[in-house]
Amino acid sequence: MAAAESLRAFLDAARARVDAALEQYLPLPPGCPAIVSEAMRYSVFAGGKRLRPVLTLASADATSRHDERAIADALPAACAIELIHTYSLIHDDLPAMDNDTLRRGRPTLHVVYGDGIAVLAGDGLHAEAFTLLAREPASPSLAARKLRVIEVIGAAAGPVGMVGGQAIDLQAAGQALGQRITLDGDGLRAMHARKTGALIRASAVAGAIMAGAPEDAVQAVDRYAADLGLAFQIVDDILDVEGDPNALGKTAGKDAADAKPTYPALFGLERSRALAGECIGRAKATLAGAGLADGWLGGIADWVVGRKN
Amino acid sequence: MAAAESLRAFLDAARARVDAALEQYLPLPPGCPAIVSEAMRYSVFAGGKRLRPVLTLASADATSRHDERAIADALPAACAIELIHTYSLIHDDLPAMDNDTLRRGRPTLHVVYGDGIAVLAGDGLHAEAFTLLAREPASPSLAARKLRVIEVIGAAAGPVGMVGGQAIDLQAAGQALGQRITLDGDGLRAMHARKTGALIRASAVAGAIMAGAPEDAVQAVDRYAADLGLAFQIVDDILDVEGDPNALGKTAGKDAADAKPTYPALFGLERSRALAGECIGRAKATLAGAGLADGWLGGIADWVVGRKN
Repeated sequence: MAAAESLRAFLDAARARVDAALEQYLPLPPGCPAIVSEAMRYSVFAGGKRLRPVLTLASADATSRHDERAIADALPAACAIELIHTYSLIHDDLPAMDNDTLRRGRPTLHVVYGDGIAVLAGDGLHAEAFTLLAREPASPSLAARKLRVIEVIGAAAGPVGMVGGQAIDLQAAGQALGQRITLDGDGLRAMHARKTGALIRASAVAGAIMAGAPEDAVQAVDRYAADLGLAFQIVDDILDVEGDPNALGKTAGKDAADAKPTYPALFGLERSRALAGECIGRAKATLAGAGLADGWLGGIADWVVGRKN
Repeated sequence: MAAAESLRAFLDAARARVDAALEQYLPLPPGCPAIVSEAMRYSVFAGGKRLRPVLTLASADATSRHDERAIADALPAACAIELIHTYSLIHDDLPAMDNDTLRRGRPTLHVVYGDGIAVLAGDGLHAEAFTLLAREPASPSLAARKLRVIEVIGAAAGPVGMVGGQAIDLQAAGQALGQRITLDGDGLRAMHARKTGALIRASAVAGAIMAGAPEDAVQAVDRYAADLGLAFQIVDDILDVEGDPNALGKTAGKDAADAKPTYPALFGLERSRALAGECIGRAKATLAGAGLADGWLGGIADWVVGRKN
């Protein structure tokens, strides 16, 4: 994969590799009730961008100086993170949360299977992520790395990370009984740092850990990904205002309709674009400072800020 | 703990140990939003029986020939399993699932915090279970055991286990859109084997693995716990028919009201009691055959079948 001649070729190859591995992990063993595996597959194979697992592979590639072995070792972690990301989308879409009916151009899972099965499909993906991480790859020498990656991903997905961010989002929307909060610019950034930032950082960090990268490289990809994650979220907010609903595959203008705090609402579109650009600048400077500019991490930053969906 | 003079003393000591450890794990680091840690603690410290973590410690005790070290090594796994059990109760109680408003004598979590926070508190406990498993205990020599325990617990909690069983339960109750199924006696047993049996088996197996037990002992506690779990569920169904709501801390008669398939409904109360007794007999025979009768696993079986809540 290091031999890919362009960012586009790298992204295509990385996505194909992740998709093939996910196909191996799902369907599950014969014991899995059909409705659960169908529901899980419906959401996992819905045409997502695969940003997080691609980031894991690119991080393993960059921090290992393009060692194919490191990329292979990072693949289960990449898939586990995508399963966790997918579960979080399923739960976030529930009527009890954001109440979204359209995702990636298709009805959301609870619209198709009912709220109960949607909760369970999310829970199933969540458990399966850790199961496959503990199982694969089998090499005993990787045990310590795998345990560290499980801890990093669990913390990023959990109450201090993604779950905590979504809880703050619910409170800001007045959906947590008795506790409504108001977010300013700093509060908005802190919320997104948990809600989307934490798992994006874990994606990059997991790749570096599985590659056996030195600690300063792990820290560098962590800082890079923190800026990348913030830029990703700002662009997400901008696309919700001015994006093409057909390209987005979800309802545009929903943030404003829900009176959600967003970057464009707080800072305006022009300043929001500038903020996203500053994040990408910092992310690339971090890579250069750590000697990690030779790889696809910088290109991924450009892709994230230039994307249309 | 091996020196406890009676089952009651063992159960009290084991529960106190689990509760103290859970107090250490929750609250989480300062970064956790208050509403999430409050919600998680509300459900974790609701006065549960702690059957699963007690079983983990008793299994570590029995398979290690009462080695205090093995019990200490198993404690994080015991706590992780209790967190997963608690998350499953929170999600099962949701209006989208069983729609229960009373649990352990108190309003269920979604009644207090709203459905969205209840989904998230469950997700947070789920993630935290794996995070603490990967983190504790720190000894590198335990890495392989920890990874195996993570895989065992993840599989038991996931689509082939607990989540799959709850999905079948939803289908039997007609709550999965478009797919209603009818359970006979074998179907009921298979559903419970997943829904409650899988995590109870994982509880016993995790204790044996952390204790470094030989493979035949791991398999024996697995078979013992399969029978224990079935007896537990039959007694649960019986208590729902004839239990004291004050002792149960939840609404009795709910299974019948929901037209759920149960052991008493399919086999009558008398035959159900006999079935539970047969399970306990088999469980104890398994222990005796494996040389594991010297410990508290047999007493736990008696407790499970004789309980009033």
